[in-house]
Amino acid sequence: MSSSAKRICLDADMGESFGVYHHGNDAALIPLVTSANIACGMHAGDPSVMAQTVALATAHGTCIGAHPGFNDIWGFGRRQMAMSAKDIEYLVTYQIGALQALAGAQGATVDYVKPHGALNSMAHQDSAIASAIARGIRAADRDLIFVANCLSEMVTSGENEGLRVIHEAYADRQYLPNGCLMPRAMKDAVISDPGTAARRTFEMLERQELTTCDGTRLVTPIETFCIHGDERAAVSIAKAIRKNCATHHIATATVADMAI
Amino acid sequence: MSSSAKRICLDADMGESFGVYHHGNDAALIPLVTSANIACGMHAGDPSVMAQTVALATAHGTCIGAHPGFNDIWGFGRRQMAMSAKDIEYLVTYQIGALQALAGAQGATVDYVKPHGALNSMAHQDSAIASAIARGIRAADRDLIFVANCLSEMVTSGENEGLRVIHEAYADRQYLPNGCLMPRAMKDAVISDPGTAARRTFEMLERQELTTCDGTRLVTPIETFCIHGDERAAVSIAKAIRKNCATHHIATATVADMAI
Amino acid sequence: MSSSAKRICLDADMGESFGVYHHGNDAALIPLVTSANIACGMHAGDPSVMAQTVALATAHGTCIGAHPGFNDIWGFGRRQMAMSAKDIEYLVTYQIGALQALAGAQGATVDYVKPHGALNSMAHQDSAIASAIARGIRAADRDLIFVANCLSEMVTSGENEGLRVIHEAYADRQYLPNGCLMPRAMKDAVISDPGTAARRTFEMLERQELTTCDGTRLVTPIETFCIHGDERAAVSIAKAIRKNCATHHIATATVADMAI
Amino acid sequence: MSSSAKRICLDADMGESFGVYHHGNDAALIPLVTSANIACGMHAGDPSVMAQTVALATAHGTCIGAHPGFNDIWGFGRRQMAMSAKDIEYLVTYQIGALQALAGAQGATVDYVKPHGALNSMAHQDSAIASAIARGIRAADRDLIFVANCLSEMVTSGENEGLRVIHEAYADRQYLPNGCLMPRAMKDAVISDPGTAARRTFEMLERQELTTCDGTRLVTPIETFCIHGDERAAVSIAKAIRKNCATHHIATATVADMAI
Repeated sequence: MSSSAKRICLDADMGESFGVYHHGNDAALIPLVTSANIACGMHAGDPSVMAQTVALATAHGTCIGAHPGFNDIWGFGRRQMAMSAKDIEYLVTYQIGALQALAGAQGATVDYVKPHGALNSMAHQDSAIASAIARGIRAADRDLIFVANCLSEMVTSGENEGLRVIHEAYADRQYLPNGCLMPRAMKDAVISDPGTAARRTFEMLERQELTTCDGTRLVTPIETFCIHGDERAAVSIAKAIRKNCATHHIATATVADMAI
Repeated sequence: MSSSAKRICLDADMGESFGVYHHGNDAALIPLVTSANIACGMHAGDPSVMAQTVALATAHGTCIGAHPGFNDIWGFGRRQMAMSAKDIEYLVTYQIGALQALAGAQGATVDYVKPHGALNSMAHQDSAIASAIARGIRAADRDLIFVANCLSEMVTSGENEGLRVIHEAYADRQYLPNGCLMPRAMKDAVISDPGTAARRTFEMLERQELTTCDGTRLVTPIETFCIHGDERAAVSIAKAIRKNCATHHIATATVADMAI
Repeated sequence: MSSSAKRICLDADMGESFGVYHHGNDAALIPLVTSANIACGMHAGDPSVMAQTVALATAHGTCIGAHPGFNDIWGFGRRQMAMSAKDIEYLVTYQIGALQALAGAQGATVDYVKPHGALNSMAHQDSAIASAIARGIRAADRDLIFVANCLSEMVTSGENEGLRVIHEAYADRQYLPNGCLMPRAMKDAVISDPGTAARRTFEMLERQELTTCDGTRLVTPIETFCIHGDERAAVSIAKAIRKNCATHHIATATVADMAI
Repeated sequence: MSSSAKRICLDADMGESFGVYHHGNDAALIPLVTSANIACGMHAGDPSVMAQTVALATAHGTCIGAHPGFNDIWGFGRRQMAMSAKDIEYLVTYQIGALQALAGAQGATVDYVKPHGALNSMAHQDSAIASAIARGIRAADRDLIFVANCLSEMVTSGENEGLRVIHEAYADRQYLPNGCLMPRAMKDAVISDPGTAARRTFEMLERQELTTCDGTRLVTPIETFCIHGDERAAVSIAKAIRKNCATHHIATATVADMAI
């Protein structure tokens, strides 16, 4: 991990508009991150939005990841659904394949997969779901990288399926002492101060430890940091992190770079 | 065309169930056709149904095609929608990619694409839509075969995009004198007598002419015959055609075979 | 309860087709039950199916209930969703209103509401969800009857909201010792033998006790018995129950009758 | 018409957000209009958004109308769909009923119905669709007012069904010489200059004539003017119209007022 600790990877959810509905601030955020988690039509993102987002990522040299979620536009994929492991596996492969084809059409490739919302949070602690996701990824392409929450079942499941796992922490979210994200419903779950976010990110990157809300430090590889593109402070946070890293001579890298 | 006239390709729409909803009679029909047009989740077919249908096709050595349609489960993709050409193009690529990934997971490949329902009937005469579909196919993979209605704009558009086009006629549907399918709302549009369907199919195959409702014969290559899997008579019609062809020593071939 | 014990109410889920997809056996079942739980477009049932089902119920003098569920056609409303209480409340009112308007158009009225699938099973033990449903019902019309699982939080919540509650047991499902339905995934969860179903139903009606899988008897009012219309044995079970009741001179009654 | 010519009714589409997706500027626009066309969940607006919009309208004393559209969130109901007349009729009743229940829950009533987007534009010239909508409205409640485009088939169909019809013109859209709205795809279709919009509105109100793009004037009752809430200039246009009317001592009125 010593070499990766000298680099920082920043990823953000993108392509979450749908038809007339705009969401997020992709154009402003994309120059600031290295890797774009592109929604695949189930929780957000219609096929045309997906194609536009691939074009945007390609224009900026941004690494492309699939960001599959539950089929729930109303709930934006943030509502847990008790879906069978088989349905999850195929739903994940389906979404990856859809994005692969739309990316391929522009000469781009999908390098990694990061689950979205409730699918992600359920898989954090549920190994059956984590395994279903890992199988769904491997089914689409065994060279795909699995961007998994640090200290989650996804890390284990991804490794068990023979996938290259990249460990992800959140730059703009508070952690519980057990390493889970603090739920959005809780006060202070979302970090909106750019300085705080940048300082925490640098700290976690340097120490390779998750910083949690009660001060507990959890040792884990941390290879990429996620910024939620639909938060108001996203652009400011990304800029603060970039500036802080520049000051410390930490280079940026993509998810694909980190997996080498 | 002389060599292809000695062979017959039979294709059918499959995988059109959705969740608890069963539709069609795939298990009975699949041994009788050579090529399966698999629904891709927009008008019918959820990811799990798609995976099951790929497994069924693989078990029977059936050639696999993607069967993309409008996103309209309620209308089963049979209601015309005024979608922009761009949206159609990306919607087609999206669906093909989803099936490609699910097929690839089982070591299978998608060999061809056939548009479904209203998307198909609109593209028959509308070159903008036909072109959008052709671009959507080529974007997913330029080696994909475009199964297009005989005498339709899809034939021209497919060729213009450099795709290999296979000309399709319907074994179980009546044609209007202009070469369009008689709309389902019209009496006698659907042919349900197996003998009639088999006789017509053989006649069209031998003559390489579409037989229309007023006796007009329209010269066209005809390389594959579609049987609607959700019609009651589908299995009987397929059996009658197979028997008739066996009598005449006409071998069966897949869409992929016909394209060689 | 002595008077209601002399009558039997039979209800069944109906109108669960969707577009081309047929589900259940409404025509055969409707003469055998007294009350129809009509799907409202979210887990099943499109507006046209709803109108047809109202017409069918009206033609048979069947009492009409709304059968709201989660918005999940793929999962048929049987997958739990972590929806907020507010969203559930409004989703319930929405579906009831839709059916009320379609029923009113035919001079019919919606007399009661019975939640469907995962919404029902979640509300069984979760008072926040049960309350949300009760508020959603009362919001549509405070005279609507709440058909609630025996011994569930829905009974309490319905009464707290001032609704008339009718207690429901299942004629074709096994119960756990705690009064919850045995999950479908468990062996023997579904009772498909008509004689067994009829005997159990009569026993539960007479004793006003739920019969559970280990023999535990749970005292509760039981006013209506549900038959799942989409099970193969539904019609046979309904006939066996009707025959058994006729033998014992037990009259049939609707949900509305039971609430008087 | 002389009395109504002294009053002006202003309506706007509202409640077109969906889950996390915000659309329009309801809070700023609602004090400026008298009547709110509330989306009903099919092209936009989920049940919770509907309830919030009813609350907003009630707080401002705004008259409430149902704004039913095609079931097409991706296309925002702006894509024409070839739906059968029966499906349209029931789809309209369904949506009205859903809003009636959510409005009734807050002690509010739905006074009128205005079709949305492609459903509206198709019904402008297609009497079968216009009649289906009128029947769908009458089925929900024969006292509902039908807000119909001036000079459209909806006016005739509404009157044929015995509905009170209110004639609507657009304050922010250009008209073709035949009285149809200029399609959005055409240059200048949308009027975004507040002064121009206000002047045209006043002119049409005074003359009771539609002003078309080539100067042709089409005589028709005009009772309400629509402002598209999702256009950037909506609030400025509404303010300009209100100011202009105040200068000319023209009072505002709701759709319900106009129907008396």
